[in-house]
Amino acid sequence: MRTDYCGLIDGRYLGQTVTIKGWAHRRRDHGGVIFIDLRDREGLVQVVFDPDIPEAFAIADATRNEYVLEITGEVRARPEGTTNAKMITGQIEILAKSITVLNQAATPPFQIDDENLSENVRLTNRVIDLRRPVMQKNMRLRYRVAMLIRNYLDGLGFIDIETPMLTRSTPEGARDYLVPSRVHDGQFFALPQSPQLFKQLLMVAGFDRYYQIVKCFRDEDLRADRQPEFTQIDIETSFLNEDEIMDITESMAKHVFKEAIGVELGDFPRMAYDDAMRLYGSDKPDLRVSLQFTELTDLMKTEEFKVFRGAADMENGRVVGLRIPGGASISRKEIDDYTKFVAIYGAKGLAYIKVNDVTNLSNGEGSGLQSPIVKNLSEACLQEIITRTGATTGDLIFFGADKEKVVNEAIGALRLKVGHEKGEAAGYFTRGWKPLWVVDFPMFERDDDAGRWNACHHPFTSPKVEHIEFLKSDPGKCKARAYDMVLNGWEMGGGSVRIHRADMQSTVFEALGIGEEEAQNKFGFLLDNLQFGAPPHGGLAFGLDRLVTLMTGAESIRDVIAFPKTQRAQCLLTNAPNEVDEKQLRELHIRLRNTQQANLA
Amino acid sequence: MRTDYCGLIDGRYLGQTVTIKGWAHRRRDHGGVIFIDLRDREGLVQVVFDPDIPEAFAIADATRNEYVLEITGEVRARPEGTTNAKMITGQIEILAKSITVLNQAATPPFQIDDENLSENVRLTNRVIDLRRPVMQKNMRLRYRVAMLIRNYLDGLGFIDIETPMLTRSTPEGARDYLVPSRVHDGQFFALPQSPQLFKQLLMVAGFDRYYQIVKCFRDEDLRADRQPEFTQIDIETSFLNEDEIMDITESMAKHVFKEAIGVELGDFPRMAYDDAMRLYGSDKPDLRVSLQFTELTDLMKTEEFKVFRGAADMENGRVVGLRIPGGASISRKEIDDYTKFVAIYGAKGLAYIKVNDVTNLSNGEGSGLQSPIVKNLSEACLQEIITRTGATTGDLIFFGADKEKVVNEAIGALRLKVGHEKGEAAGYFTRGWKPLWVVDFPMFERDDDAGRWNACHHPFTSPKVEHIEFLKSDPGKCKARAYDMVLNGWEMGGGSVRIHRADMQSTVFEALGIGEEEAQNKFGFLLDNLQFGAPPHGGLAFGLDRLVTLMTGAESIRDVIAFPKTQRAQCLLTNAPNEVDEKQLRELHIRLRNTQQANLA
Repeated sequence: MRTDYCGLIDGRYLGQTVTIKGWAHRRRDHGGVIFIDLRDREGLVQVVFDPDIPEAFAIADATRNEYVLEITGEVRARPEGTTNAKMITGQIEILAKSITVLNQAATPPFQIDDENLSENVRLTNRVIDLRRPVMQKNMRLRYRVAMLIRNYLDGLGFIDIETPMLTRSTPEGARDYLVPSRVHDGQFFALPQSPQLFKQLLMVAGFDRYYQIVKCFRDEDLRADRQPEFTQIDIETSFLNEDEIMDITESMAKHVFKEAIGVELGDFPRMAYDDAMRLYGSDKPDLRVSLQFTELTDLMKTEEFKVFRGAADMENGRVVGLRIPGGASISRKEIDDYTKFVAIYGAKGLAYIKVNDVTNLSNGEGSGLQSPIVKNLSEACLQEIITRTGATTGDLIFFGADKEKVVNEAIGALRLKVGHEKGEAAGYFTRGWKPLWVVDFPMFERDDDAGRWNACHHPFTSPKVEHIEFLKSDPGKCKARAYDMVLNGWEMGGGSVRIHRADMQSTVFEALGIGEEEAQNKFGFLLDNLQFGAPPHGGLAFGLDRLVTLMTGAESIRDVIAFPKTQRAQCLLTNAPNEVDEKQLRELHIRLRNTQQANLA
Repeated sequence: MRTDYCGLIDGRYLGQTVTIKGWAHRRRDHGGVIFIDLRDREGLVQVVFDPDIPEAFAIADATRNEYVLEITGEVRARPEGTTNAKMITGQIEILAKSITVLNQAATPPFQIDDENLSENVRLTNRVIDLRRPVMQKNMRLRYRVAMLIRNYLDGLGFIDIETPMLTRSTPEGARDYLVPSRVHDGQFFALPQSPQLFKQLLMVAGFDRYYQIVKCFRDEDLRADRQPEFTQIDIETSFLNEDEIMDITESMAKHVFKEAIGVELGDFPRMAYDDAMRLYGSDKPDLRVSLQFTELTDLMKTEEFKVFRGAADMENGRVVGLRIPGGASISRKEIDDYTKFVAIYGAKGLAYIKVNDVTNLSNGEGSGLQSPIVKNLSEACLQEIITRTGATTGDLIFFGADKEKVVNEAIGALRLKVGHEKGEAAGYFTRGWKPLWVVDFPMFERDDDAGRWNACHHPFTSPKVEHIEFLKSDPGKCKARAYDMVLNGWEMGGGSVRIHRADMQSTVFEALGIGEEEAQNKFGFLLDNLQFGAPPHGGLAFGLDRLVTLMTGAESIRDVIAFPKTQRAQCLLTNAPNEVDEKQLRELHIRLRNTQQANLA
């Protein structure tokens, strides 16, 4: 039997005989002896084979990379000059007495320590890819985070209750994954987008403190931080208000960061949604970047310059400045690149002013302001821009002027890009962790195309008590009892106090243009049960994949998921999805729509 | 804020002021005061409303069952003669000072303490049903069991790694649930029947000790102990043999029973599959019933009686006796009922002999043996039956004679039925917990209809080293390195040491009649990866639903699942599955086969 893990054998084992099992990570001959670095999940240890034991030497000699070996030997100190201070096992080596080949290995598709692999190669050969120490570390951190959360919540009396995976399709929000029913011809289950309704029903059932670490599904086109199936840390409580729920989950987040990666997050500031949008153009501001928007919309309403004036006069138009301290040194080429960058977000251009001399704010020749647009603006306006942004000599100000949404997204993204690229040297980017709560979200957002209001969070979110009157009169004014936990520009989790009265739920459905019949058809089981004594309740859901990605510093959530899908929603390892037998389709009462197979069937 | 849970307030709280929140379980007027039993997840507490505080009294007076209330009051001793020793809160009551109605409740569809509800009513009104204390207890026990397992395995260095829910369909074993792909026209994901292949791949990837508590899916017709989605405790390890794996999981089971319900399971005996079938006709014998089969097949090969002789001469035929101590008192009517019972399992009749006088074993008139069949058997045979069964005066012997499978199932079921109905009084049933390991399973079972061998466990199970030679020459003789944990007649878990060499896996596929191309098509990703240095590995999977059902003594696994499906695979709460929009089907490239909707589309 194995006595120890390879990667944990250190100086305390000197003189002991150990039996280890693992993979031949590297094998080399040197000075008449053979060295094998044996690898297991805990790391590497160096094993030495001496020709004195010819049987073991011969086997070691025939060993190739990734062979599975069992080795027994004595731990001894490495000769002077050959120690490696970076490794736990760097002071010792194992003098092998015996070796058994537990399994051979074909030459793997790539070296385990190859750092330059395309994601395609990695995902196709995911099993070998998972052997890489960084992937082993990521999976273990993911596990550790989940267990820390479980034990933390357990200590607070939360219990994990499993909700169904095969559930009801309620086309709302994202697209459902459907599962045809064999027993019920023409009917379908849906995979859950979240356990939202079930967790609310568990509160109505009296479970009081629920959590679940659970797979959720959304059939959407994928971005870097999205997967068709993702893991949610889902929390719901009864009888707590938003402050109490935020306190519990903030404490949990602090605990997990402390225990898992030794980071003290400190107390989370709270920022109103309106302030976040005003200052950062985003409801998940990355506060490591200290750059802020300066509001200029009002100022431009009286200027002639039509690029700014047009945006200022637009319904939902916005004009902002973004002061970049020391930005006057940004080159023309860089500004061109930034202009292309903001175009991705729909911006039609990127106006700027370099402040070469803050004491000369004229709009004519010889001005201290360098910019194609200076001549179009009044001197009073230029003065006010400098005052409001606080710009000084050597700074640059970028401008965004368009529909509010375009300005927020484009200048918000620019803020991050400039901040991350130049901020550390220039003092407007701080490494580390910047958590915050964003609160006071609007209840609804206007969908102008559809001519209706949509729920910002979801249609079960409670309005602020003092805004209930706006539900019918002015839905856009109505704020929700909703909150997002944001960290370094990522939404870690979001939640709300829910509606616990059936009449209020009906009113909100009405505001959303969901008629009584539609509501009953889609959410009848919720409405019915709200009538039977639903307690006040609320909760929050965290994205585990994102949380762990952020903690590891990985580039993609695919690096913290053992068997992820590509952006085309495929598993390159198993080749899923795949074609199925006609017999299977018949049993499920469906046929293919387009393919040759469909025509034959 | 709530200061305490209702159900936990006991004599230690006397004189304290508490604030509690919960549901009005019962409300009654008595002697000019109002009593409300307030219920939360921890239980009930009695609250008294005195007319001295008219505001609170008026609200209490208007309260109906299942209203959600917040009550503040002082804990005082109950008057003498009104205490209730059965309740934690039975010595105290709370004198209310204030009460707030947090939510009203319509009259619920049934009383929370109604014990006589049909399952249909319960599942349709599942949210209210879950308020019943027994359901609250079941869900919490389920959670506690899962957490005990997590922490136990964590202590042994296991880590939970999530495997995909959207995976590849490999029609093998049970029927897959399919999920049409929107991105890949004509292709489907399958929901996993188990994470079997992924957990093996994780071993190849070097994770060494894996577990997962995970949803699995089988689209099969449902029995009482089956659900379309069920929860598996899935375990896999590298470098351990079957004894080591059984030791770890047996210790885990003992730990969980001890900590969750205070039961000491003791050491698990091990029984070979062949012995289990010989003695109990079952690979999951309920050892609480001590009745055993007596093998009579050989004996009947020389008898004239064609019912027995025919079965004895049959290929795969079997004749057994089942001695029931004291069974001579079983009535004709009861025997008729047992005969009908075994017919369910395909038995064509149920022969028996009552031993009225063991000293007179003649087959003629005046025999001490009472039976319609005695005259058909030789006296030597009767003597041998008595000797082998050990029957004595007052006993009864039932007989099974048919194909082995029918005998095992029919007499096996009879053994349990008689054992459970009559065994406790007669001394052949012991209450309590009877765990065992069943080991040495066959590798293959013959499918005569298909003319081929099927895998008994699954096709990735390793044969016993000493039986490898039988793989080609005599598959029926080949035993597997497989093991089942059995408790009180339920299979708690099953597992095996897996095949870790690609060549051996190919040989086993061959024995199963799976050609090279088919194997590569279905399991290529496993075969490929076995070549890159797969460690010896094995594991086990427990059914969490069954485990908890057994622990609670519930009648159905539906009683330990928050939102189960009916036997027709429906959720009566949400009405899933349901019909979906034509637009959804179009996006998934499928259409309905049979319905009107399909014809219109």
